[in-house]
Amino acid sequence: MTDVAAFSFNKLVIFGVGLIGGSLARALRERGETDGARTVIGVGRSPASTARALELGVIDFAAALNDDAALRDALSGADLVLLAAPVAQTQPLLERIAPFLDADTIVTDAGSTKADVVAAARAALGARIGQFVPGHPIAGREASGPDAALPDLYVNRNVVLCPLPENASASVGRIAAMWRATGAVVRDMSPEQHDRVLASVSHLPHVLSFALVEQILESPDAALKFSFAAGGFRDFTRIAASSPEMWRDVCVANRVALLEELDAYTAVLARLRAAIDAADGPALEAVFARSRVARSEWQEHRSASAAPSDASK
Amino acid sequence: MTDVAAFSFNKLVIFGVGLIGGSLARALRERGETDGARTVIGVGRSPASTARALELGVIDFAAALNDDAALRDALSGADLVLLAAPVAQTQPLLERIAPFLDADTIVTDAGSTKADVVAAARAALGARIGQFVPGHPIAGREASGPDAALPDLYVNRNVVLCPLPENASASVGRIAAMWRATGAVVRDMSPEQHDRVLASVSHLPHVLSFALVEQILESPDAALKFSFAAGGFRDFTRIAASSPEMWRDVCVANRVALLEELDAYTAVLARLRAAIDAADGPALEAVFARSRVARSEWQEHRSASAAPSDASK
Repeated sequence: MTDVAAFSFNKLVIFGVGLIGGSLARALRERGETDGARTVIGVGRSPASTARALELGVIDFAAALNDDAALRDALSGADLVLLAAPVAQTQPLLERIAPFLDADTIVTDAGSTKADVVAAARAALGARIGQFVPGHPIAGREASGPDAALPDLYVNRNVVLCPLPENASASVGRIAAMWRATGAVVRDMSPEQHDRVLASVSHLPHVLSFALVEQILESPDAALKFSFAAGGFRDFTRIAASSPEMWRDVCVANRVALLEELDAYTAVLARLRAAIDAADGPALEAVFARSRVARSEWQEHRSASAAPSDASK
Repeated sequence: MTDVAAFSFNKLVIFGVGLIGGSLARALRERGETDGARTVIGVGRSPASTARALELGVIDFAAALNDDAALRDALSGADLVLLAAPVAQTQPLLERIAPFLDADTIVTDAGSTKADVVAAARAALGARIGQFVPGHPIAGREASGPDAALPDLYVNRNVVLCPLPENASASVGRIAAMWRATGAVVRDMSPEQHDRVLASVSHLPHVLSFALVEQILESPDAALKFSFAAGGFRDFTRIAASSPEMWRDVCVANRVALLEELDAYTAVLARLRAAIDAADGPALEAVFARSRVARSEWQEHRSASAAPSDASK
């Protein structure tokens, strides 16, 4: 286990105790040193999910989102709130939370898109927007739910924070310290830069992977094809087993940046198509060789930082 | 180790002692029972590669492809010959071998495409085409060379044979028995069916994966993007580290079937693009959910047959 800075908190309220929220809770409980009280309350749409998180010891208490009294109790005196739900729920969640939010509670999120989340937070919180520090832990697995949560999911992973002009630097520092306590590396970006980069290296590959499985399903000999699919297909389509709801929201929320990347990708594909059609071996080999070198260098650099092998996104 | 049928041979000559040829040699040496003599001779373009295969004990003797006397000795009395080189080398290799080939030697190959290989073999062998049994072990790793060879690479993997009308059934049976001795499952297909299926589940994903790395490389913020790439990118692009020469040949050799699959894929992608552009969440979620179910079912079915985790293609 890597050395982590000590991080203490009194009460952390997590909206969405699945893979992402559950892994934060487990990391803060099970990793590094903490001092002081550290109560974790889980709030969810699904009573089954929060009950399971309680059962697994991921959270100390569960509250239902539609229960005013429980929500008031949960948020009263909370120092930290994490939203870990599909990004389309950001605005309704913050609107639901706002009436019960203490003035010194810091709220952050784990959404895979940031410009839309910032807009949603501004709409929901108004003058209190300074309490919201936008964030995105770049880690995940295709599995979801509290059973998928891992204490080391964030070790050596990037967590992007997109501080707002209204954020007190102490608030940003506290959220950064929380993520560092999980073993993560915290990096700052603007929401727009974040969305463009993630559209390229995460959102686009997910769409391309879902599309391949869909294309095979639509073909008349789908069963035969699947029966001959091997390791290349396995890895290429692992992310096609990801949460449809989460990825629906990501695609809609980040559609401008995603379409730009998709169009650039389609242009590369059209060039490769022309080279294949012309049986232009040298052109194909040049692209493949360039890609191989870049991919291999990326892997070497990544392996040097020794992240857990099954953590991914 | 799974039970394998005993398989005996006197002299096996492998052209290309890298991952595929080397793994066959190692499997036949190290797995199951063999009786009788079993000499394995490796022939290669690169002296360094055959020397390394000798050093690793993958082969007993090495011969240089451009040495007539060595090639004659190697092929004299050989019962089996495997071609394990990029598919564009099939015809020149067979033309080189033909003058030294005994009448009862059976030749097979491991090429990722089959219609072009059959055409090349007919052109090179003419009336002796019956000695050639086309084959394709569907297994691989992105690593290449004799050091990448594994004795269990073929365990529970599909090996496709595409018997020709000219093949004696005993010849086909002998090649099938050879692959079964490595732990593989042997399945028959026509060359055209093989090429269509593999274009879909193997060749297309390789092109798509190379294309993503290329697209990122061409973007102005490539370094930043790579620095935020995580597990999804890792798995999606693992096959973009594959041999450029091999995949150049596959794309050219199988271009008709590959372009059909690529065009069908591009059509699916265009539909997804329209749904993203229209912020049509339900349409996106429907496709993603369908893909997730199909991918998860495929994984469950595959896991049930317990193949080695790092063997892939």
